Amino acid sequence: MSAGWFRRRFLPGDPLPAPRPPGPRASPVPYRRPRFLRGSGSSPGPADASRRPDARPVRSPARGRSLPWNAGYAEIINAEKSEFNEDQAACGKLCIRQSEFGAEDDQEWLTLCPQEFLTGHYWALFDGHGGPAAAILAANTLHSCLRRQLEAVVEGLVATQPPMHLSGRCVCPSDPQFVEEKGIRTEDLVIGALESAFQECDEVIGRELEASGQVGGCTALVAVSLQGKLYVANAGDSRAILVRRDEVRVLSSEFTPETERQRIQQLAFVYPELLAGEFTRLEFPRRLKGDDLGQKVLFRDHHMSGWSYKRVEKADLKYPLIHGQGRQARLLGTLAVSRGLGDHQLRVLDTNIQLKPFLLSVPQVTVLDVDQLELQEEDVVVMATDGLWDVLSNEQVAWLVRSFLPGNREDPHRFSELAKMLIHSTQRKDGPTGEGQVSYDDISVFVIPLHGQDRGSSGH
Amino acid sequence: MSAGWFRRRFLPGDPLPAPRPPGPRASPVPYRRPRFLRGSGSSPGPADASRRPDARPVRSPARGRSLPWNAGYAEIINAEKSEFNEDQAACGKLCIRQSEFGAEDDQEWLTLCPQEFLTGHYWALFDGHGGPAAAILAANTLHSCLRRQLEAVVEGLVATQPPMHLSGRCVCPSDPQFVEEKGIRTEDLVIGALESAFQECDEVIGRELEASGQVGGCTALVAVSLQGKLYVANAGDSRAILVRRDEVRVLSSEFTPETERQRIQQLAFVYPELLAGEFTRLEFPRRLKGDDLGQKVLFRDHHMSGWSYKRVEKADLKYPLIHGQGRQARLLGTLAVSRGLGDHQLRVLDTNIQLKPFLLSVPQVTVLDVDQLELQEEDVVVMATDGLWDVLSNEQVAWLVRSFLPGNREDPHRFSELAKMLIHSTQRKDGPTGEGQVSYDDISVFVIPLHGQDRGSSGH
Repeated sequence: MSAGWFRRRFLPGDPLPAPRPPGPRASPVPYRRPRFLRGSGSSPGPADASRRPDARPVRSPARGRSLPWNAGYAEIINAEKSEFNEDQAACGKLCIRQSEFGAEDDQEWLTLCPQEFLTGHYWALFDGHGGPAAAILAANTLHSCLRRQLEAVVEGLVATQPPMHLSGRCVCPSDPQFVEEKGIRTEDLVIGALESAFQECDEVIGRELEASGQVGGCTALVAVSLQGKLYVANAGDSRAILVRRDEVRVLSSEFTPETERQRIQQLAFVYPELLAGEFTRLEFPRRLKGDDLGQKVLFRDHHMSGWSYKRVEKADLKYPLIHGQGRQARLLGTLAVSRGLGDHQLRVLDTNIQLKPFLLSVPQVTVLDVDQLELQEEDVVVMATDGLWDVLSNEQVAWLVRSFLPGNREDPHRFSELAKMLIHSTQRKDGPTGEGQVSYDDISVFVIPLHGQDRGSSGH
Repeated sequence: MSAGWFRRRFLPGDPLPAPRPPGPRASPVPYRRPRFLRGSGSSPGPADASRRPDARPVRSPARGRSLPWNAGYAEIINAEKSEFNEDQAACGKLCIRQSEFGAEDDQEWLTLCPQEFLTGHYWALFDGHGGPAAAILAANTLHSCLRRQLEAVVEGLVATQPPMHLSGRCVCPSDPQFVEEKGIRTEDLVIGALESAFQECDEVIGRELEASGQVGGCTALVAVSLQGKLYVANAGDSRAILVRRDEVRVLSSEFTPETERQRIQQLAFVYPELLAGEFTRLEFPRRLKGDDLGQKVLFRDHHMSGWSYKRVEKADLKYPLIHGQGRQARLLGTLAVSRGLGDHQLRVLDTNIQLKPFLLSVPQVTVLDVDQLELQEEDVVVMATDGLWDVLSNEQVAWLVRSFLPGNREDPHRFSELAKMLIHSTQRKDGPTGEGQVSYDDISVFVIPLHGQDRGSSGH
């Protein structure tokens, strides 16, 4: 990692840091030179994922691709439970072309040279279900969607305050004041671009899967560092946390049928036809049966945070829209997540009831103002798919991070080793946390050091 | 206030504290003996509200009622800006009848004696708009709705864990385990009862206003102390905060067109006919005009937290569904709040466009576990309508509380005096905070001491 890449704003005219060749112990994360840098319309592929030493051969289409060089500053390791590797990942430098302020879409871009790029970094984890197809497509596509969305608003990104009009033309003299009063900041444009990129990528996946006769969906957890801020966008049940010496901060929320109960029930209330008379939208502590008829049982509906009692009618005996607790909770008896990409064709088994209307592709975006943090050398962001968090709590991961890093300061690959160690600690009953839990799910982990690598590798 | 009324659970068999006669400097908050205590079906009226010394005569129907005695432990003072007093309040003891476990609705209640009651306390503020009618009805009605809702689940309230079946019958041997796994606690029943009570009260207000040819709506902020917990239910833009020696904790969120933008835009997305072709659901920094046509301007839609740009079409020139910033933000150009009671007949001026579909009567409920706080003598909850918070920040109110109470420990009416002082400090440019802001809105304030009055009045 180039020193301070993450902690200062890009100023037009700054040279881009020179690419770093892979070291003798190259990070297992391949860096893929983004082809869009050269103006190509084609999408780069997903980052290949290293496998656990004991892993079976992976039939992921991403495996074994030839990738040009390795940036070495982000780590991912997959464990696999399934025939196909449903976890996929992507990372790389994000280069956003800057057009002249006010230039129209069809105008020529300025000559491409580093000064014309706004640069950032991008890390993404996709946890597939129903096959790896959606996760692979997402790893191939999402960063291109994001680049496109960011380029569409780049004049706003490099301005002190986003202008009311992208053309820079001022229709009303107090336009800047209106923008100021709404509190619209540059970071809102990045959040908007992430939201739009997820939606665009979802549409691409829908078209591609339909065209190729494939199925499936995936969760998406993305971190983007841009202009001194880290944006974490999440749609699904992966998680990112910030670990510092004296702080653990959760940077994402999980979206599952349980956490989005009210939104999902509300939709079924508005469009009861989505349940085709087969499901009840009400929540009960367990599925009701004949003996419950006529009794008053605990329930809650879309507008309720609390619980109440209702007298059981025949319609309440139907299968619940959301059923099961915790990791077992399922939407329409089928899906364990409520946001993500893909699943356009997904239907409840043996019915024509679609899942997609209940799923959101839009992520929740959290912004970490890295410039405002007094960064310590071992401050990291840990991003991982649900397999890790099923077994390790945030505090346990933080404990492992803090135990591992100080003793390995001389190792230039300590962040990769930490990522491996985190995964391995979920595979042994005598793991370092002593909890004795073992994960049988795919697990992918990024460890992103926030501090400049210059200092990080100097042995402090 | 009886000592510790608030800090212990009611146990069947505990004697109720004896009513306290009003002292020589009776609190301006009249306590109204709840008539439902005696099994009457009639609703008690709203608490009368003291007026500022300089206030004009108030034409509130609540004024000047004869009320039996004064409990003296909660305070409310109104300032008025309008001909009618649109702020209304209610407070009193909440007595919930306990039936035999498993008794059916039509069975006889047990002989009424104190042991058969679960007792709590109730404070409520209603900030009316479009006339005082809805606020008065709410002050007359909501506590009865709440009592009814709590009595409907009282067997669950007095159990260690709410039973799956209200009858106590166990259909499935692992029912308690299902309830346990869902994490359903007694407090969830109180939250559910508050949610249902607000909805029931809203229906009553709708019927009563229609029958009497009146109009109007109101916000509702309610605090209920029950079984060692304080429940704060809010629908509107009033606010409750906890002030302790070294802590200020916000106990409610405000619900305005701005804070509920996404919910409101989402509804207009699902039911575009609600806008009758007169409004645009999109948000822009200002209302667009002809000159903006064809340009790309900042906007956001229902699914967006961030902002993006869109090319302006003719439909975007319509009046925005939510327009204005901060205190000026209005729903459909009409209403400054997005939750509350009433407004069943409210329409956009000179149109047939209804506001009610966009309004929620369901409150958000926060639970304060008072039993878990190490209460200090001067820990209080301050509840107030928006007029106070427009002028004073939470920290300023906390500063005023901490400045006032220690110097007035001998005054048994210091909490009433504090409520008055808080209101008066919004009426003077040279107010104690030195901020120089003056409020011209109605203001109502409750100051609720959390510590037992025995200790509070003993001069510690």
